[in-house]
Amino acid sequence: MSYALNGRPGVSEATRQRILDIAGQLGWAPSSAARALSDGRADAMGLVVDRPAAVLGNEPFFMQLISGIQSVLSGEAIPLLLQSSTDRELEMDIYRRWYAERRVDGVIMVDLRHDDPRLAAINAMRMPAVIIGGPYETGGIPCVWSNDAKAMHDVVRHLAGLGHEYIARVAGPENLVHTTTRSEAFAETVSELGLPDPEIVYTDYSGEQGATVTRSLLSREKPPTAIIFDNDLMAVAALGVAQEFGISVPERLSVVAWDDSPLCRLVHPALTTITRDIVEHGSTAATMLMDLAEGEEAHSRGTSPAQLVTRASTGPAPR
Amino acid sequence: MSYALNGRPGVSEATRQRILDIAGQLGWAPSSAARALSDGRADAMGLVVDRPAAVLGNEPFFMQLISGIQSVLSGEAIPLLLQSSTDRELEMDIYRRWYAERRVDGVIMVDLRHDDPRLAAINAMRMPAVIIGGPYETGGIPCVWSNDAKAMHDVVRHLAGLGHEYIARVAGPENLVHTTTRSEAFAETVSELGLPDPEIVYTDYSGEQGATVTRSLLSREKPPTAIIFDNDLMAVAALGVAQEFGISVPERLSVVAWDDSPLCRLVHPALTTITRDIVEHGSTAATMLMDLAEGEEAHSRGTSPAQLVTRASTGPAPR
Repeated sequence: MSYALNGRPGVSEATRQRILDIAGQLGWAPSSAARALSDGRADAMGLVVDRPAAVLGNEPFFMQLISGIQSVLSGEAIPLLLQSSTDRELEMDIYRRWYAERRVDGVIMVDLRHDDPRLAAINAMRMPAVIIGGPYETGGIPCVWSNDAKAMHDVVRHLAGLGHEYIARVAGPENLVHTTTRSEAFAETVSELGLPDPEIVYTDYSGEQGATVTRSLLSREKPPTAIIFDNDLMAVAALGVAQEFGISVPERLSVVAWDDSPLCRLVHPALTTITRDIVEHGSTAATMLMDLAEGEEAHSRGTSPAQLVTRASTGPAPR
Repeated sequence: MSYALNGRPGVSEATRQRILDIAGQLGWAPSSAARALSDGRADAMGLVVDRPAAVLGNEPFFMQLISGIQSVLSGEAIPLLLQSSTDRELEMDIYRRWYAERRVDGVIMVDLRHDDPRLAAINAMRMPAVIIGGPYETGGIPCVWSNDAKAMHDVVRHLAGLGHEYIARVAGPENLVHTTTRSEAFAETVSELGLPDPEIVYTDYSGEQGATVTRSLLSREKPPTAIIFDNDLMAVAALGVAQEFGISVPERLSVVAWDDSPLCRLVHPALTTITRDIVEHGSTAATMLMDLAEGEEAHSRGTSPAQLVTRASTGPAPR
């Protein structure tokens, strides 16, 4: 409060002192609210999760990301403001309100889309922000990214090395930047290796759609002998469908998941996956955001390379 | 601000007006910070998660709880302040700071313990709070609870009906109130049915400890023919151990999980579980907390009864 009054034209030293005296008499505490008025710091960071509240609970990705963010922020006693919203306009309203009301010092954004309208909104507000995703199309906002293209090359080569020719990719939503990155790398590698035309099916990441698409793929006259899924839930659901069809994994079908989780290690057969350290994505983003909020610069960072972890769900192509 | 000054002794009408004029000249915005100073409302709720940030990501329970809380708060554009802390003293400090600094209007508390020191602290602060758990030992703080005793009776009777005599319980931490509730109901039902002495092993809920305890139980000369786990992660880990031992489920071992999740439905064999609606726990608690923050009363509520859902992981006891 004293800061807010300092050196302001039209406020005499006597008036300033008088206001501070009254504030003291009123017992106004040095609350974060008062501090936010005085130094503009909220000492909190924000995350809007672009999933319906009801499905959030089934997404290991988000909980691991939040876990990583927390591991940095909790040490600084900085809480994370969390809200879910499936509406992009509403999401931008939330950012505007949070920043205007000094509820947060910055935000971490997920699910970068093509022509993402949030980027211009964030830049116009000059709010510190870090994107999980990229490194393309981030509108100059620093990001934490992983080399998904290389990981996809590795997976396809692993499967081709096992003799698989007809490999399908069951992807996430088509309008996400990282979905495109993976699809392009998939198509490129399949083509490089001279395999038949790549097949890609897009989904909403849910176990239900993972199961439905798998049923459809396995019902064909010439079904794929290997399927690469874009998350863990869909790959686990596919194991259930294979079981239902009496198709043994990996003898007749190889299954690959994206992003490791206890789920992947605990199912039977354990899932071959692309392991990215999602917790690290969260902690790196939180560290960068703290720097930005301090007025320092933050540059985009790649995380530890995604690793192909082969487990029991992939094996030689059936003859 | 006008509210804060209204009717205060020692602040004349002229002084009050003078302060308001200056505030206006300074261009103080009606930010949440200013509003928190004036009407004392933060328009945010808080949750401290009593798990290390690193393991939070593997707990479907918390994500589903948060999902339920969000489903109510997001509709009101009220964010959730989230922080993880494994230290009870620190947790109480966080509550004190959040409430003193008007960062939250109230909190939702989890993992109620015996002689929980948080209850007296919350009551002393007069902060609105709702507990997930109970209904005992809540110190007068309203709670959202489920009838764990009845659910445990149902599970044990289900297994006894299948001919199982030697049933083990792999529980969560012993100092949690709901662990005791379930253990007592387990011992009581086992005794009522005239089965051998109940065996209970306590763990930290991790998949690792679930696997270790299962290995130890299955290595005995006379292993249990049925094991009831206190969460889903441990039960899934047990399926992996049974596989490792060449013990088929459910032919030689029946496995029951607590709390349903996609994990339980997707593994093979699918897990028989006690299904509680954790999302509903979260939404009910959030609704009660909103009422409390509005100055209304909120009474403890039981949630929809926990249901025993029998799936492929339980079957007749081996002969």
